[in-house]
Amino acid sequence: MQADTIATIDFDLGSYRARANRALEACLPQAEPGPAQLHEAMRYAVLNGGKRVRATLVYATGEAVGADSALLDGPACAVELVHTYSLVHDDLPCMDDDAERRGVPAVHVAFGEAVAVLAGDALLAAAFEVLAKGSRDLEPERVVAASLEVSRAAGSLALVGGQVEDLVFDASDTNAARIESVHARKSAALIAASIVGGALLGGADFETVGRLKRCGLAAGIAFQIADDVLDEGEDDPCSLVRALGVDRARERAEELLATALVELENLGEKAEPLRELVRFSVRRTV
Amino acid sequence: MQADTIATIDFDLGSYRARANRALEACLPQAEPGPAQLHEAMRYAVLNGGKRVRATLVYATGEAVGADSALLDGPACAVELVHTYSLVHDDLPCMDDDAERRGVPAVHVAFGEAVAVLAGDALLAAAFEVLAKGSRDLEPERVVAASLEVSRAAGSLALVGGQVEDLVFDASDTNAARIESVHARKSAALIAASIVGGALLGGADFETVGRLKRCGLAAGIAFQIADDVLDEGEDDPCSLVRALGVDRARERAEELLATALVELENLGEKAEPLRELVRFSVRRTV
Repeated sequence: MQADTIATIDFDLGSYRARANRALEACLPQAEPGPAQLHEAMRYAVLNGGKRVRATLVYATGEAVGADSALLDGPACAVELVHTYSLVHDDLPCMDDDAERRGVPAVHVAFGEAVAVLAGDALLAAAFEVLAKGSRDLEPERVVAASLEVSRAAGSLALVGGQVEDLVFDASDTNAARIESVHARKSAALIAASIVGGALLGGADFETVGRLKRCGLAAGIAFQIADDVLDEGEDDPCSLVRALGVDRARERAEELLATALVELENLGEKAEPLRELVRFSVRRTV
Repeated sequence: MQADTIATIDFDLGSYRARANRALEACLPQAEPGPAQLHEAMRYAVLNGGKRVRATLVYATGEAVGADSALLDGPACAVELVHTYSLVHDDLPCMDDDAERRGVPAVHVAFGEAVAVLAGDALLAAAFEVLAKGSRDLEPERVVAASLEVSRAAGSLALVGGQVEDLVFDASDTNAARIESVHARKSAALIAASIVGGALLGGADFETVGRLKRCGLAAGIAFQIADDVLDEGEDDPCSLVRALGVDRARERAEELLATALVELENLGEKAEPLRELVRFSVRRTV
């Protein structure tokens, strides 16, 4: 029974990922008609086998609140496009200067720096386009609210602000609260916006949206800690693993996971894929 | 009488510009609480005495369709933020490599390249935030439609695509249609989105929005030609002045201006500030 449940959940998560990949493929512009190089760079950046954690969170949250997945392709694509744009810009020589991403040349290496900046810009604009466009069968009030969530998660108080703080983080600073505050901006805000986007456009009531947002913020910080546990050998100055050691960082991720799961208690059986996904995101080994 | 009318119009346009500056000042984050450097860079980029042509178009279009200006601060800020983000990124060393903008150091010179990329990113996100946030007294369907217009105008088929084409434009190409097609993407799409945003959120009917969009596209190309006429000495490979000479470029701008004004014929006296603004944008000497 337990094995069956997990198999079903795995199937659901895999089918969400496949659904996200199809929706992303469909929403990205083809190389022709052009500008060909820009469109190729956008497709290269997005369609490279990402885990689609954020899109999957949108679908799983939609399922948890009883929504039809078919309505959620817009927000699922939007959060993946925001995530991808941020990776393209983070990899630039003037930022983290990473030449590779997921085992292939970074966008600025493959297409040049100017196209990498512009492809990132176009992906960010495309996120809001796909959110507004996919709205025919959705309540427009909820589309506006989701757009506000995603824009804030992408903005100077969240994703972009977190990247600035990460770039200048003092490697001798081992204050866990300060490290988590950077994680909250750089990673957790978009994770929470994915969950809130799925909840809003899935028709959740106000109280449930609030619970799911708190779930997303805790899970998002735990997700970033899990990333740092996996990258143990790497040299990120803003990392709980570096500050506290791997065991205490793992404990803290479990604490945050418990906080996140408490917020899902009221949602019953249909939230099981979301619970499983949140657990998986924090305990994953890849 | 003619002189009075013009004086009144000048007053209206000046008051729109002042209104846009107040709204921008209010929608931008303060330096503290931070990230201070990022927020300072955003404010430095935006609050530097721009002409606010796009915001003024939003307000003047709203007036033309009988709307209350107070409702239009959101879209007016949004188009100015998109415009400013594009200037910050265009000035980067990997793009046009301009060290100055409006007589002061460009953002990447004043704050460094990483902060300039991120400030541009945050301004683009902020455009969609201010559009979604300012929506309480507006019909949400219209907010979604305006967000779609602005996202498309900022995207790979418009602003960003036009910048890519401008960067690689072949200086020996004197084909006027190809030059105008780059202008249509790089400049006119956002001018048109400013007018369409004002029309949509000002409550215009479907047919009027269509007319105003055609007006904006023609006026936007003419506006770019006027820019090139003013910059006569400068060396832009994608310029009708370079391709046809200044006299024929001016003639073409007047043709486009006439096309734009035809679309405003049905709108009566209340569209006079918009007409005057469109004329001014094309015939300005600064």
